[in-house]
Amino acid sequence: MLWPQSDGRHSPISAAVLTGAEVDQTAGLLTLRERQPFDLFATAPTLALLGANPMFGVLARDVVRRQAVEFGESFTVAGVEVELFRVSGKVPLYREGAGDLADDTAGVEVRRDGVRLVFIPGIAAMNDDIRERLARADAVMIDGTLFTDDEMIRAGTGEKTGRRMGHMPLDGEDGTLEALAGLSNRRVLIHINNTNPILVDGSPERVRVEQAGWEVAEDGQEIVL
Amino acid sequence: MLWPQSDGRHSPISAAVLTGAEVDQTAGLLTLRERQPFDLFATAPTLALLGANPMFGVLARDVVRRQAVEFGESFTVAGVEVELFRVSGKVPLYREGAGDLADDTAGVEVRRDGVRLVFIPGIAAMNDDIRERLARADAVMIDGTLFTDDEMIRAGTGEKTGRRMGHMPLDGEDGTLEALAGLSNRRVLIHINNTNPILVDGSPERVRVEQAGWEVAEDGQEIVL
Repeated sequence: MLWPQSDGRHSPISAAVLTGAEVDQTAGLLTLRERQPFDLFATAPTLALLGANPMFGVLARDVVRRQAVEFGESFTVAGVEVELFRVSGKVPLYREGAGDLADDTAGVEVRRDGVRLVFIPGIAAMNDDIRERLARADAVMIDGTLFTDDEMIRAGTGEKTGRRMGHMPLDGEDGTLEALAGLSNRRVLIHINNTNPILVDGSPERVRVEQAGWEVAEDGQEIVL
Repeated sequence: MLWPQSDGRHSPISAAVLTGAEVDQTAGLLTLRERQPFDLFATAPTLALLGANPMFGVLARDVVRRQAVEFGESFTVAGVEVELFRVSGKVPLYREGAGDLADDTAGVEVRRDGVRLVFIPGIAAMNDDIRERLARADAVMIDGTLFTDDEMIRAGTGEKTGRRMGHMPLDGEDGTLEALAGLSNRRVLIHINNTNPILVDGSPERVRVEQAGWEVAEDGQEIVL
């Protein structure tokens, strides 16, 4: 994903692909604003949500090319084939109550030379299509926000269940571990909330996800496929 | 500025004071969004600019109290007296061309027990009122974005002069060094662009500002008054 280095300022980022318009998916764009060209791929509703915030005008439209893509449409980013697909989620927190926008939560499948990576930072419920897509992948990175659905309520850090926030829990009958028990590919949990006990090395919950074949993502982790 | 520590999540930040609505003055608020209460002080136009961006709705209005303040009005933040004052600047980049908003660039004076700090991260031109305010202060932190007005153009990193971006240069007849040559208090240059040669230890420009009695701010710097 290298952009040709210029004489002046330089960014190695040639494209960004958004899986939604929530703050943690978009605020980082504001640090890429110094008239460095890149392509910004997202669904039209996600781009519309960004466009409704004048501040994102700092990504000048003559420099940062908005590219609206459809779910299921493949596009190429720096030689890699990319496809967004719909997952069950929720509208961004700051649009709750606005009532005018469809849930547009996405996962990403990345393909090159027959190798597949599937990345889903937020998912509220599993279904057969997504389970099959995950099973086909060489590696899976998926929403590990909470271990139990009411974890933040019990920790006193929030009033919402995980599902209410668009995140299915890892544990429980309809949790991610159970839903994906049949997978045997490389599986990495991402987007982990600081209340989640799997962050504690050696905790019973950490041991449990590791014994089920899952990794817990680390800062700076590199995955070679 | 301590907020009483709670059982759950905790932030030591009890208030934020904005000197404008430019991205580098506001985007950090998006990381303070986990329903932690604090007061947000700014002028009404600055709060309106934030309010025009739905994304800042993540700072829930029942938790983050917007406090509109007037230029010249003193208010108290955690036992410290604070006053915003108007400086010459410009509207935020993302509102250029919108034509509906006044320039609302602010400096901040902070007072406690007779000790004064003046903080001005962006200023396009000096005037007598501000010079007198700076002279009264025990310490001054001021806009050191560029050394010369056309520095970014010559470096090939931009097409705008410093003044066009709302920043008077340090050097030159009407630069900051000349305009504030009479000051003898503690003076620290902040908001320094990465093209500014004063960032290079031992450069002629660095030597020049140091010989004129100025410090170049460093990450993590603490100032005791």
